[in-house]
Amino acid sequence: MTPSAFHEVAHLGHVELLTPEPEASLRFFTEVMGLRECAREGDSVYLRTYDDYEHHSLILTGHSTSGIRTTALRTWSAEALKRRVAAIEEAGLGIGWRDGNFGIGQSYAFRDPDGHEFELYWDSEHYTAPEASRPALKNQAEAKPAHGVGVRRLDHVNFLASSVEPNGDFLRDALGARTSEQIRLDDGRIAAQWHHFGNKSYDLVYTEDWTGSQGRLHHIAFATDTREEILRAADLFLDAGVFIETGPHKHAIQQTFFLYVYEPGGNRIELCNPVSRLLLAPDWQTVTWTEIERAKGQAWGLKTIESFHTHGTPPIEP
Amino acid sequence: MTPSAFHEVAHLGHVELLTPEPEASLRFFTEVMGLRECAREGDSVYLRTYDDYEHHSLILTGHSTSGIRTTALRTWSAEALKRRVAAIEEAGLGIGWRDGNFGIGQSYAFRDPDGHEFELYWDSEHYTAPEASRPALKNQAEAKPAHGVGVRRLDHVNFLASSVEPNGDFLRDALGARTSEQIRLDDGRIAAQWHHFGNKSYDLVYTEDWTGSQGRLHHIAFATDTREEILRAADLFLDAGVFIETGPHKHAIQQTFFLYVYEPGGNRIELCNPVSRLLLAPDWQTVTWTEIERAKGQAWGLKTIESFHTHGTPPIEP
Amino acid sequence: MTPSAFHEVAHLGHVELLTPEPEASLRFFTEVMGLRECAREGDSVYLRTYDDYEHHSLILTGHSTSGIRTTALRTWSAEALKRRVAAIEEAGLGIGWRDGNFGIGQSYAFRDPDGHEFELYWDSEHYTAPEASRPALKNQAEAKPAHGVGVRRLDHVNFLASSVEPNGDFLRDALGARTSEQIRLDDGRIAAQWHHFGNKSYDLVYTEDWTGSQGRLHHIAFATDTREEILRAADLFLDAGVFIETGPHKHAIQQTFFLYVYEPGGNRIELCNPVSRLLLAPDWQTVTWTEIERAKGQAWGLKTIESFHTHGTPPIEP
Amino acid sequence: MTPSAFHEVAHLGHVELLTPEPEASLRFFTEVMGLRECAREGDSVYLRTYDDYEHHSLILTGHSTSGIRTTALRTWSAEALKRRVAAIEEAGLGIGWRDGNFGIGQSYAFRDPDGHEFELYWDSEHYTAPEASRPALKNQAEAKPAHGVGVRRLDHVNFLASSVEPNGDFLRDALGARTSEQIRLDDGRIAAQWHHFGNKSYDLVYTEDWTGSQGRLHHIAFATDTREEILRAADLFLDAGVFIETGPHKHAIQQTFFLYVYEPGGNRIELCNPVSRLLLAPDWQTVTWTEIERAKGQAWGLKTIESFHTHGTPPIEP
Repeated sequence: MTPSAFHEVAHLGHVELLTPEPEASLRFFTEVMGLRECAREGDSVYLRTYDDYEHHSLILTGHSTSGIRTTALRTWSAEALKRRVAAIEEAGLGIGWRDGNFGIGQSYAFRDPDGHEFELYWDSEHYTAPEASRPALKNQAEAKPAHGVGVRRLDHVNFLASSVEPNGDFLRDALGARTSEQIRLDDGRIAAQWHHFGNKSYDLVYTEDWTGSQGRLHHIAFATDTREEILRAADLFLDAGVFIETGPHKHAIQQTFFLYVYEPGGNRIELCNPVSRLLLAPDWQTVTWTEIERAKGQAWGLKTIESFHTHGTPPIEP
Repeated sequence: MTPSAFHEVAHLGHVELLTPEPEASLRFFTEVMGLRECAREGDSVYLRTYDDYEHHSLILTGHSTSGIRTTALRTWSAEALKRRVAAIEEAGLGIGWRDGNFGIGQSYAFRDPDGHEFELYWDSEHYTAPEASRPALKNQAEAKPAHGVGVRRLDHVNFLASSVEPNGDFLRDALGARTSEQIRLDDGRIAAQWHHFGNKSYDLVYTEDWTGSQGRLHHIAFATDTREEILRAADLFLDAGVFIETGPHKHAIQQTFFLYVYEPGGNRIELCNPVSRLLLAPDWQTVTWTEIERAKGQAWGLKTIESFHTHGTPPIEP
Repeated sequence: MTPSAFHEVAHLGHVELLTPEPEASLRFFTEVMGLRECAREGDSVYLRTYDDYEHHSLILTGHSTSGIRTTALRTWSAEALKRRVAAIEEAGLGIGWRDGNFGIGQSYAFRDPDGHEFELYWDSEHYTAPEASRPALKNQAEAKPAHGVGVRRLDHVNFLASSVEPNGDFLRDALGARTSEQIRLDDGRIAAQWHHFGNKSYDLVYTEDWTGSQGRLHHIAFATDTREEILRAADLFLDAGVFIETGPHKHAIQQTFFLYVYEPGGNRIELCNPVSRLLLAPDWQTVTWTEIERAKGQAWGLKTIESFHTHGTPPIEP
Repeated sequence: MTPSAFHEVAHLGHVELLTPEPEASLRFFTEVMGLRECAREGDSVYLRTYDDYEHHSLILTGHSTSGIRTTALRTWSAEALKRRVAAIEEAGLGIGWRDGNFGIGQSYAFRDPDGHEFELYWDSEHYTAPEASRPALKNQAEAKPAHGVGVRRLDHVNFLASSVEPNGDFLRDALGARTSEQIRLDDGRIAAQWHHFGNKSYDLVYTEDWTGSQGRLHHIAFATDTREEILRAADLFLDAGVFIETGPHKHAIQQTFFLYVYEPGGNRIELCNPVSRLLLAPDWQTVTWTEIERAKGQAWGLKTIESFHTHGTPPIEP
């Protein structure tokens, strides 16, 4: 990586999530999570969080199984897009250009070494909210939802990968990511790595897939305005019959306040809140956690739940 | 007052609020405040907060003007009801018995010295939530609303009165209320008094009506689970176009965290949160605030807003 | 119980806690929890929470082992004290009168059927804070502590008992307590019972002692102003090296937001927050949880931690 | 500005604040705000917020009057520093190189067009906390303070300037800043401008000085972990006798939750919390507020307090 590559990718734009239960999943994302529907096409419903300045944050697509289809990243500029595409092609992982839709322009598709599909794009129209959800404050994309959890933004994606390190190498080399934290097992293997593109301390995470399979998803995460909104969400999930896997609690790694649930299609969804934490140091040294440190559990002592190591999407036969 | 009269009234049950804008007011209470409709009759819609163990918390009635029609208090027992009715009749302020409806049994109507109408009742069916709003936890009346503010309970009523003291005397003598705090002006007049029936530090408040008129309302208040839910509510009010009068801030008197808005019918509505404060002392001495102390404004220095002294319902010609 | 006995006990006043590590325990309660020292006598340090209107909330006494020595309850009046003493003596559980000290007058000592010692008193001087901790608001006992967690009040005591039911019967019959919630095992045994004296939904709790021994303590609890202060406390505990047993999370029973730690003397201490929940119904029916319902864990799904069933004070040889 | 100049300044590093009441100001910053002292030299005390990865966040210097002496910014790299120094010298505003101290290396001093002094530096040692304040989590600079407010970081500086626009032009041209929001008066004058260097939506602000004088300070701001910590701080300020100017409330501009106080030396200090808001768009268009929009007051309707337009430091004779 040349130092200048950092900042070439601006942020996570949106993801496409697959669900075998499209109606129930849609109800979960709109009625419980408080996302708003902004478009439909084919088997896909386009949804947005209230503070997304672009057209959509999540494409929910009915499918034979669950999992993540695409993770779309916006570059810092048109030139940054060209440079990153060149780097991806040099790495031999490019797929090619695709036409955009619904406010997102042409994007370049590619795969990470583990096979997860990504898209990289620059052109993006800033969203104008319809009358019904027009915000009172002009520095905000859309009114804060009165319904459901009302998450602020799509925050990060945590991928499962048969091998963690090659993906981190690729993100750093081709996309200019930096690695803020990681877990190194006693045998030297990297069990998980957290990467970021700006002052958020992570945007993309890779976690080792215990099944050895490729291209799967651990979870996608949405950020709330406050920790209290995660506690309120826990009550809403409870009454709505949503399966709560673990939390609320605070991660030791990245210190995120979290809550994990499964949406009806089986995908793990995290609510997260960083409690004002930002990564400002330009020379941040990757924090490496050892196996014994991880065995202590989460920040306040909660043991990592077993299913955290056994549930991924799509599900696979053992 | 005989000491034993304290605890004879258990708590504030419900109020009937009048509105000249019944449709807009109903939308405010259901869509913005998150109350649930539980019955209709004539011009009235019955609404409930999620943690009310009785049938309804608020009766919203279309009318030629705004204001409060009735404040209903539940007694501690059938015997307490008899004793309080005797005391009210002795004071010459009784109106008489009324048939109940929607889960509330027979009630005894009366007036305070300023002319506000009250009802006192004992019989009350505990509410059973319908399937759609059944709570996950069996020690809760109804599921916490996913929509709107989602207030927990009707908390207190603040009445305007041409003269404050006679009403406090009546509440103490006839109903066994205690006075937790009050404002005494330099000329000796009591400008406001806060009364309570249990560990909540106030349930009924009287504030001097600057117009000298009788029977008017300063505000009714709903308690939220947390202060953070009041901050979230402020955002919802802003986007919904609800008029915010003052707050969020913390009252010096009673230390309540508060936010005041006007519902579309013109009535002032408070969101309040006590932040765990309770009045546990059986020998609490009434706290008296002087004119100079009150001039300091609210707890953290916010000046009391002018309209707080000029807006009451129903509005009257000066 | 005659109905009128409810309300004869006003509230939990203070407890005496024993510790084999008096210096470390004192540092925990003052530097981490934010209680203030208000007196010393012999091996005891008197400590207070900031919103306690009486002289002290906790007596911390150096001793050969841990556990609770006395739980002091204040009555509603001098007459109520006489009536309750008569009822206790009739039950054959009285010990006798004791002189008071530090603002608390004469108290009557007795034991519950399991052998835990209690005191009942009426005379109590309202606390006047010294200059250094004088509150800005005159309706508050003392300034909110700038140091440590800064808990508001001693909230409740949870006793271990060889048999739960006789203690609840005694509390109801002799002290006028009411039972708000309980756990009934499949074999009919009551595994735990929550009792209250006012609008707080519990003040004293009995939990079955798995060792069959008598007179032990499960935990004492302090209430914070907000849930957020419990989350902040978790961070302070972490950095101060305090052992966090479980939480923060929300109990299904009583819906309390909680965090459990062990103080250096080994006693379990809870931080709790009721999130505005009050028990207002005069005819509340005891909520009974079954064994299968309890197996679901806490409100948001956290499994009850094993040590919750094995750690009590004083520790005993198995 | 060449597009690449954005990101050359990484973040606000520290400021030097002047006070005519050095002892009282130091007590305010350590005992009330919860900063920790890390060094002393001459009339200066070096203080740090708990999550600052560098040596210090604030230099507090005893002086004949109040105000801000220096604002230090860290560049993204050694090369970025060279390029920015060249741009500053080209603008004719350079002062020259200075030796660093206490972990900060050589810095380049300069002035903005209004005369405020700045320093730009790259070399900076990452802070290692002493045993007494070592954090439990290795991805955090120092333990969260148990004492006082316990602010996370120095967040931004708001300068008064005789003319706002030239300073914004300079920040953009020489330092690569971007302007996220601004106020344009009806006569076309820019009354205030908010500039940022990363995903925080502002780091440096210029507000028109009503006195026409130069080089003064409106306020410096510290970020808390949560809004709730600002509400807790308001209680601490109240009991500590700190003058609260306005708040807590939410700004319309930038949507920051805020509280303003004066430290004993007279400088205005803000507590701020962004509630997870970040500026992620690489093509964010400056939001311009009109005079009429500003007249609406803050987000939830609080009128901007008069002293906000009349108090700056150092004070000047009218």
